[in-house]
Amino acid sequence: MSIPAPTVGELVPSVRLLLGPGPSPVHPRVYRAMTTPQLGHLDPQFLGIMNEVQAQLRFAFQTANPFTIAVSGTGSAGMEAALVNVIEPGDTVVICAAGVFGNRMADIVGRCGGKLVKLEVPWGQVFPHATIEEALKKHAPVKAVGIVHAETSTGAQQPMDGLGKLCHAHGALLVVDTVTSLGGVSVTVDDWEADAVYSGTQKCLSCPPGLAPFTLSPRALDAVRARKTKVQSWYLDAGMVADYWAEGKRVYHHTAPISMVYALREALRLVCEEGLEPRFARHRRNAAALISGFRALGAQPLSSDGERLPSLNAVTPPEGVDEAAVRKYLLADHDIEIGGGLGPLAGKLWRIGLMGYGSSQQNVVTVLAAIEQGMRKQGKAVAPGTAVSAALRSYDGA
Amino acid sequence: MSIPAPTVGELVPSVRLLLGPGPSPVHPRVYRAMTTPQLGHLDPQFLGIMNEVQAQLRFAFQTANPFTIAVSGTGSAGMEAALVNVIEPGDTVVICAAGVFGNRMADIVGRCGGKLVKLEVPWGQVFPHATIEEALKKHAPVKAVGIVHAETSTGAQQPMDGLGKLCHAHGALLVVDTVTSLGGVSVTVDDWEADAVYSGTQKCLSCPPGLAPFTLSPRALDAVRARKTKVQSWYLDAGMVADYWAEGKRVYHHTAPISMVYALREALRLVCEEGLEPRFARHRRNAAALISGFRALGAQPLSSDGERLPSLNAVTPPEGVDEAAVRKYLLADHDIEIGGGLGPLAGKLWRIGLMGYGSSQQNVVTVLAAIEQGMRKQGKAVAPGTAVSAALRSYDGA
Repeated sequence: MSIPAPTVGELVPSVRLLLGPGPSPVHPRVYRAMTTPQLGHLDPQFLGIMNEVQAQLRFAFQTANPFTIAVSGTGSAGMEAALVNVIEPGDTVVICAAGVFGNRMADIVGRCGGKLVKLEVPWGQVFPHATIEEALKKHAPVKAVGIVHAETSTGAQQPMDGLGKLCHAHGALLVVDTVTSLGGVSVTVDDWEADAVYSGTQKCLSCPPGLAPFTLSPRALDAVRARKTKVQSWYLDAGMVADYWAEGKRVYHHTAPISMVYALREALRLVCEEGLEPRFARHRRNAAALISGFRALGAQPLSSDGERLPSLNAVTPPEGVDEAAVRKYLLADHDIEIGGGLGPLAGKLWRIGLMGYGSSQQNVVTVLAAIEQGMRKQGKAVAPGTAVSAALRSYDGA
Repeated sequence: MSIPAPTVGELVPSVRLLLGPGPSPVHPRVYRAMTTPQLGHLDPQFLGIMNEVQAQLRFAFQTANPFTIAVSGTGSAGMEAALVNVIEPGDTVVICAAGVFGNRMADIVGRCGGKLVKLEVPWGQVFPHATIEEALKKHAPVKAVGIVHAETSTGAQQPMDGLGKLCHAHGALLVVDTVTSLGGVSVTVDDWEADAVYSGTQKCLSCPPGLAPFTLSPRALDAVRARKTKVQSWYLDAGMVADYWAEGKRVYHHTAPISMVYALREALRLVCEEGLEPRFARHRRNAAALISGFRALGAQPLSSDGERLPSLNAVTPPEGVDEAAVRKYLLADHDIEIGGGLGPLAGKLWRIGLMGYGSSQQNVVTVLAAIEQGMRKQGKAVAPGTAVSAALRSYDGA
């Protein structure tokens, strides 16, 4: 043996409060479920657990789609699964890109051999449906429209009502990214008439990263079945994956990440116990308080009222504040992680995730208090309690 | 909300002894590490942990390759990562297929637009290097040769020495599947001169499924960098993934499955503590005892001496035994999972995994005792202790 064993000690990381763009804080019950002794991936008991997770995901997605599963990869694998199954070489695909994740969709379209039509608005804004309709007409026939419901890089929340109907009227499928909304913000796949929708586990579901919830409408599955070419990814081939998840079939495809499925099952039990509407209301209440606190500090939200995600709060730091220094101070002195801006917004944004288990009054107060202190460290004249007081007034008024 | 919440109870599966083809039993320390509170995937502490895992994987793979990482998916994602990065449309690729996983490689070559040259030998046998050399000459230029070191579906162990040199002499890269060998059977990537090698965590590393160890030689990375076309998978694009794992770069690509990385780190610590040679010797000792026990029952190993994996023991059940009924009895009455045959070997094989933490005298004795009983249940005249005694004689003689 020519390569010696490295010396690696006990795993003792700091305990961080994860209020960035994800991963979010994991509920203790989820950690506990994750260490349940493993079953084999073809054990009859595990197949029963898969059925349960599918039913739970249909509830979270608000869909009756039989094809509703968890892809064995993180959210980005869900994006790739949605696009590689729907797109064949030569297909025209309209992508609405106003952030990192819309741009990622556009990149994948090219790798699938699709003809990309990229629509853009400034980062932080949302797409008027009329713009999408225009593109559907101009570039007809369009195979699919891809759009991000919850743009993690900007905190913008795309209005979805009627978008599926619009796409279908032009013969196109609707592909939707709900990575930062599922379980925290209303996602209604059947009402939207969306065809391929994916998410991640590490945001509003408060589960570790490692699986991507994914659902396909019967219309999308028909398109997959009518393909002239094989899906370019064996690992993400919906037809083969469906045969593993489908009751009565259970054809071996690949080894599912058993412990992650256990974790997701428990995370979804928590969603079911709380109920969707109370959960969404909690996310809205805490986001409103956080934004009130930021406004009291002179920090302004990037997106307009009504177009913001309560799960991911992007704000422009107050004039003259070194945003990166505040983030470093939070991590070093308070063990709190928050995010900065990406791409054109690098250095211009704080991104605070209040997702799932992480969306709590305790966390809102904690992060605002620390940010206030960080600003005072930089010599800003902010009276102690300015932000926290504003947040508490928001809670009291709610 | 039109889709009601399903009723899903507490997670209380049976506690199985996993002696099938994987997942294997997980060491308690690995479960414990897995629930360590999560860091963000760009936290400086997490980046340090990634460095440690890379160093550990280089030890396990016995390679100095800088590009040595864990792909965010199960073993099959590792296979896909290896092939989609190496192959461009039109490339000739030789695949050695004598089992499920060789056939899977062949399937993926087609999805990459490669020209497939499929070599076959009967399942359970290995490939003479002369056969591969002949194909390299006949189909020159060949971009890559794909071969399975440890064929999980048959238990055959492919001799590897000199194979990289042979491929390189003909300008081809060598792609190797070590899913069921890494950490249990000697894998020496640099000595083999192998170029793209992948594995899974849920076999001889005794970690839950969810990550795929993956290493690329400098020669393979040069080929990736010289591609004329983009890698068809965004998620598995080695160039982009490398920029996330590379020290000093750490460009955000996708959210790594944090808890799984913790688990893998601890699983690899156990490998480092035990040492590779003692670990391989343990696997050999337990496999030899198991095979002795099986022979005493009249069950014969599928592959020839010297071409068998100690981690996955495939045997032909004794004449007249209903192999599926024995497997059902083991699961129902003893909570022991073992595997059956796949493809042409369905109904003709037992596959017993003795992998990582699962490779122990305790498990050998336990599974042989239960199989004996299962045979007596079917009316076979097997004196109690026949198999266990033979196994113990093997241990005593070792």
